[in-house]
Amino acid sequence: MPTDFAATRALFDLPAGLCYLDGNSLGPLPRTARERMARAMDEWGRLLIGGWNQAGWMAQPGLLGDRIGRLIGAEPGHTVVGDTLSIKVYQALAAALALVPGRRIVLSDTGNFPSDLYMAEGLLRMLGDGHALRLVEPEAVGDAITEEVAVLLLTEVDYRTGRRHDMPALTRKAHEAGALAIWDLAHSAGAFPVDVTAGGADFAVGCTYKYLNGGPGAPAFIAVAPRHAEAAPAALSGWLGHRAPFAFDLSYVPGRGVERFRVGTPPVLAMAALDAALDIWDAIDMEDLRQRSLALADRFIKGVLDAVPELELVTPREAERRGSQVSFRHPEGYAAMQALIARGVVGDFRAPDIMRFGIAPLYIGEAEIDRAVDVLAEVMERRLWDNPAYRIRAPVT
Amino acid sequence: MPTDFAATRALFDLPAGLCYLDGNSLGPLPRTARERMARAMDEWGRLLIGGWNQAGWMAQPGLLGDRIGRLIGAEPGHTVVGDTLSIKVYQALAAALALVPGRRIVLSDTGNFPSDLYMAEGLLRMLGDGHALRLVEPEAVGDAITEEVAVLLLTEVDYRTGRRHDMPALTRKAHEAGALAIWDLAHSAGAFPVDVTAGGADFAVGCTYKYLNGGPGAPAFIAVAPRHAEAAPAALSGWLGHRAPFAFDLSYVPGRGVERFRVGTPPVLAMAALDAALDIWDAIDMEDLRQRSLALADRFIKGVLDAVPELELVTPREAERRGSQVSFRHPEGYAAMQALIARGVVGDFRAPDIMRFGIAPLYIGEAEIDRAVDVLAEVMERRLWDNPAYRIRAPVT
Repeated sequence: MPTDFAATRALFDLPAGLCYLDGNSLGPLPRTARERMARAMDEWGRLLIGGWNQAGWMAQPGLLGDRIGRLIGAEPGHTVVGDTLSIKVYQALAAALALVPGRRIVLSDTGNFPSDLYMAEGLLRMLGDGHALRLVEPEAVGDAITEEVAVLLLTEVDYRTGRRHDMPALTRKAHEAGALAIWDLAHSAGAFPVDVTAGGADFAVGCTYKYLNGGPGAPAFIAVAPRHAEAAPAALSGWLGHRAPFAFDLSYVPGRGVERFRVGTPPVLAMAALDAALDIWDAIDMEDLRQRSLALADRFIKGVLDAVPELELVTPREAERRGSQVSFRHPEGYAAMQALIARGVVGDFRAPDIMRFGIAPLYIGEAEIDRAVDVLAEVMERRLWDNPAYRIRAPVT
Repeated sequence: MPTDFAATRALFDLPAGLCYLDGNSLGPLPRTARERMARAMDEWGRLLIGGWNQAGWMAQPGLLGDRIGRLIGAEPGHTVVGDTLSIKVYQALAAALALVPGRRIVLSDTGNFPSDLYMAEGLLRMLGDGHALRLVEPEAVGDAITEEVAVLLLTEVDYRTGRRHDMPALTRKAHEAGALAIWDLAHSAGAFPVDVTAGGADFAVGCTYKYLNGGPGAPAFIAVAPRHAEAAPAALSGWLGHRAPFAFDLSYVPGRGVERFRVGTPPVLAMAALDAALDIWDAIDMEDLRQRSLALADRFIKGVLDAVPELELVTPREAERRGSQVSFRHPEGYAAMQALIARGVVGDFRAPDIMRFGIAPLYIGEAEIDRAVDVLAEVMERRLWDNPAYRIRAPVT
């Protein structure tokens, strides 16, 4: 039975009248999450230390991991949840570099999320010995995959433009050159069907607070290809990644497969909210989601370009070259976005001039798209950003 | 006005009749935490992305850090909350090693919590080039601080025995030898007054789910001595440790001082529970807490040794040489602890033969201590652990 997107909106607790096109930054509250969190608080109060076993807290990183694994095409048993995406990037990159001895170049692009680049920078500085990050423009990545490259580190969907890389093609090219590929799925997981197995990804990482709706600061995930699972070393070798954490050995022995990418004590309360959010995803057909997302995005793009020709579309038009976000460029983008938000149409802004709109079909339909087009047209036509209140360039998160 | 410990118990939601002596593993639920968490869920639902600024989520790591900073004697503005303790150990050690160029030995002891040793092992393996971890017995640490040592990495209170290191003396010795000192306060913060400033600690780290009652998997903290704040490099250089995270620069520029030890997006929901837990601590005089803790521990030790001479006390008797936990050794310790737990006296067990009891005066008084003594005496005298159900050596968390 096809997913009923007219019904899924009721699964979220969204403020009445709000047109929320920022789920690519922070997804909304799933209605069951309050109760799930209250239950986790009860478990803490009632079971205390016993909650680790009796409430199953200790097993959650793997269980939640596998539910995300289904959405990204990872093999069962090869995804775990924990930490933040930045930490997961570090783990994946350190492991991947160790699997390609003798090479020292990490190739990424200028469209990668800065934190991925920063984490790589920190790791490579520590490794020293000629290790270096090579950055090229997104369009130049394919040609830059040479036999010098140890690891290709990319975010599949550009956080500003919404441009989507061709994961299978670039991964194949990396493998042909003897390199490994790490894919950051921050703007992919929950945005469209991902298949890291068919795509050949060696490692995949992502966050759960965007399209997956896991809550502010929800834990991240990491998936490792089964062929590397027992060979990949754990650089952040914490006790919960140990083969037998409760033996309290003095030396580290890596846990089985992806388990070694667990680090410290799992974030039980945060995982409760994520658990509720994933209940919704368990019932979603990702192909249906993609069709719906493309239809809504096309409607938005056409509506905006017809009504406001001065906005420059920076997201590729071809379906296979974009994620589930639509971005426009305008010199007054920051102030215009503030004016939009003040009118109940929430997107966000990324420097220097990008207005981003996330299309999440679980709670966005034609009505929201049409209203966003109308309000955007009004703001742009009437220069509503000329209100001085919108001109303060405060940090936008 | 002295802290009224008869009143503080009512601040926690503890199961009726339970004698909970395991707050050194996971502290109980503060009564206000449910409501605080519900409020955080409301903020997520209502403010969505706006919560980062409007609900102050983004500032919480520093605000919570400073409230913990007061309990451990850190200078205001030099403590932040986030990640897990294992990650914070890694950050502190990587930074400390960079501050002592030319030395490659990390000195620790066999009483350190294994995850600290594992994280050091992973870091030192990555650094290579002669970097090594040197482990000695806790009593031998002082003599092992030689001019080869780069960093002294210790947990102040031994997680098994409750033995407390002399932080000022060992730190002074480390400094005299040209080394730095990192103190893990997992079993110190909230257990007794700590003064990392007077003690000279270069870095201090700890977790918040034990004595501080922040909740299962609550985030950790790191404090840096002001003299290193601007010099210490960030190995885990995530975007929220960047000087200007929302500028989205392609290169990392460390944030000011301890801010650079923030990594990824902060765990908003987990921080809400910790916030409620710290409200209780804001009103506690730590010297009062220490006196109360010692009096209760003395009562427990005397009661147990009088009633059950076959139990061997492994915690030092001298007040200045112990934390707020009392441990006994017994060959049947695991099974005996299960029998105790079945009778509503909850301590825990650490291999191979240690029975641990945490003394948290906020919710433990004379009545609980006396009952624990009585039940322990009964279990040991009647060999109640001979119930086969208690002999399965399941992992104890």
